[in-house]
Amino acid sequence: MNDAEDNVALDELGELGLVSYVDFVSREPFLYESGSEIPGFSLRYETYGHLNEAKSNVVLISHALTADHHCAGINSLQDRKPGWWNNMIGPGKPIDTNRFFVICSNCLGGCQGSTGPTSINPETGRPYQLEFPFVSIRDMVKAQKRLLDHLGVSKLHAVVGGSMGGMQVLQWAIEYPDLVERILPMATTSRQGSQAIAFNEVGRQAIMQDPEWMQGNYKENVGPRVGLAIARMMAHITYLSDKGMDMKFGRRRRSKNSDTNFSFDVDFEVESYLRYQGQSFINRFDANTYLYFTKALDYFDLEGQYGSLEKAFEGLQSKVLVIGFTSDWLFPPEGNREIVLAMLRAGKDASYAEIALDFGHDSFLVESPDLYELVRAFLDSD
Amino acid sequence: MNDAEDNVALDELGELGLVSYVDFVSREPFLYESGSEIPGFSLRYETYGHLNEAKSNVVLISHALTADHHCAGINSLQDRKPGWWNNMIGPGKPIDTNRFFVICSNCLGGCQGSTGPTSINPETGRPYQLEFPFVSIRDMVKAQKRLLDHLGVSKLHAVVGGSMGGMQVLQWAIEYPDLVERILPMATTSRQGSQAIAFNEVGRQAIMQDPEWMQGNYKENVGPRVGLAIARMMAHITYLSDKGMDMKFGRRRRSKNSDTNFSFDVDFEVESYLRYQGQSFINRFDANTYLYFTKALDYFDLEGQYGSLEKAFEGLQSKVLVIGFTSDWLFPPEGNREIVLAMLRAGKDASYAEIALDFGHDSFLVESPDLYELVRAFLDSD
Repeated sequence: MNDAEDNVALDELGELGLVSYVDFVSREPFLYESGSEIPGFSLRYETYGHLNEAKSNVVLISHALTADHHCAGINSLQDRKPGWWNNMIGPGKPIDTNRFFVICSNCLGGCQGSTGPTSINPETGRPYQLEFPFVSIRDMVKAQKRLLDHLGVSKLHAVVGGSMGGMQVLQWAIEYPDLVERILPMATTSRQGSQAIAFNEVGRQAIMQDPEWMQGNYKENVGPRVGLAIARMMAHITYLSDKGMDMKFGRRRRSKNSDTNFSFDVDFEVESYLRYQGQSFINRFDANTYLYFTKALDYFDLEGQYGSLEKAFEGLQSKVLVIGFTSDWLFPPEGNREIVLAMLRAGKDASYAEIALDFGHDSFLVESPDLYELVRAFLDSD
Repeated sequence: MNDAEDNVALDELGELGLVSYVDFVSREPFLYESGSEIPGFSLRYETYGHLNEAKSNVVLISHALTADHHCAGINSLQDRKPGWWNNMIGPGKPIDTNRFFVICSNCLGGCQGSTGPTSINPETGRPYQLEFPFVSIRDMVKAQKRLLDHLGVSKLHAVVGGSMGGMQVLQWAIEYPDLVERILPMATTSRQGSQAIAFNEVGRQAIMQDPEWMQGNYKENVGPRVGLAIARMMAHITYLSDKGMDMKFGRRRRSKNSDTNFSFDVDFEVESYLRYQGQSFINRFDANTYLYFTKALDYFDLEGQYGSLEKAFEGLQSKVLVIGFTSDWLFPPEGNREIVLAMLRAGKDASYAEIALDFGHDSFLVESPDLYELVRAFLDSD
């Protein structure tokens, strides 16, 4: 949690400054959707801003596949980068920490401090690895609910998130309709499609076919680094857009080589960028968590789970704004719009906004006055 | 070449039936665009139909990245599948072998019989592997030109091809304007874009990071099979479309497992399909050729090479029809249309057609009456 006194100057700059995480430990058994059980779990989380007396100003942030609980501010003065949604969250920002108490936790199954495949299985004294139960989007939400209970929070002003975070947001409104006042899912889908499953499967194969994976039983600091980097490089392309990549990299080369200086070394800027993405990812992310989370995405299917989208949404009490992005081809705008159309057919209070940005799926993470305005207005709405 | 007598019955069925390849061997040194030289090369090719006396009925087919010279008919009665464009080429088909003499050769650098990285370097007595010179689209065309000279062909009724084949088609019209009467490139681009380079680079990394690649010096029948399968699985997704995949596979599962029966084994149909694609590919394709051909694609840039597309096309004498496909996101329709617009600005005889099909980049390979009609009419045109 941020220390308000140290941060006065930063606050005036609209920055949270130093923040730190907390580990919530639940010692109650946790029953997964799959029927498996673990004796307890911990969730690492951060909070920003102050919980008001009525405990009515909570905004819960749900993170995407490879993000974590650290969504704003910096954890140390040495941090070169702030949290992943620092442009959106902070004093005076669209999710205004002067008004809201923001909570974000690393998902169950994660590798950034929450219980996941790298955690010690108390029953064996060894890391869970593939003995970790399959975790669904629903399980992630259920674990977060326990954290909220622990914090004494029984009303959520809003739940906000993009991509896999958007799936959790939808699940929140379905599972706990009377708790959630507003949901703001973006760049998401109600049902993982065939192409997205296909890309995830290639990533999983790259990891699982890496000899260092060893059926998931790799040691700490080693493991299927090559496979995980390949998976990340490929996935990263799906987060961008053809046009966005052409604007950012085009056919620019790193050297001033003539066209006749061919080699298999890195040459185009985009190659260099991807290799960097792959390499930096393997230093911060666990391969088994990547397998579990991509499976959580692939099995997400509200239509299949509830019979139809209308049925999935029939108990909804939240006010809804879904935001899609024109250039998102991983979770295209049509799939976002479809969510709202189903809610409207179910008689719910739902709106859809589509933002024209060229940054592909990752558009929800970029600076965008249009997006900021929508988020701010929606959080302000009655 | 097909034996007309054996094939009378098949001919009546509109099928070529048995065809066989021929190896053309050039013993003249070949100078690559890169400045490298090899003492000679061979190209494996097939022909269908009969060359008329005036030698004026030749249609040259250029193949895509992972295809080969065998584009129609069967090579043996045991063949389970005919050549890759059998629906397009044959007696009475859009590229009608009753009228045209069709030639298709495996590209220089290939692994289906033409000289490539797996061929013996006469100077060392060992396979070229990474000593094989970088091969450009222009080099592929130049080698094919030698085959045509050998066959005594000095006029091409048309050059036809999709994807990398389309790049060769464009290069043919630029390099040999007085030889080429018609060109029909489809599902292609004048310039490999950033996203396509990125996907190719991930495929190359999957191969080159596979320990079995051994800097390209793997032995026959072994090699980076895992990496090559990963590269193929990923690339295969880029040949399809989101909608096409949803229609073909959706979220169908292979077993009737309940949703709670989670595992990392193959479960969704699309996963099974991709694994099959990966496995069958590694039994027919050489990993080093994959590296060379993807680089040939990546360095293809007519704008960069000639200063502008208009300049690239200024010497053109061929009649042109470019065909793009609405759902092709690897080489989107815009890039195909752009080629024709540049030709029109350069005062050339060029038309563009866009076909609405949901099969993505591979649309040019599927059965389509619209496509057939366009090809037939264009080949008939004056």
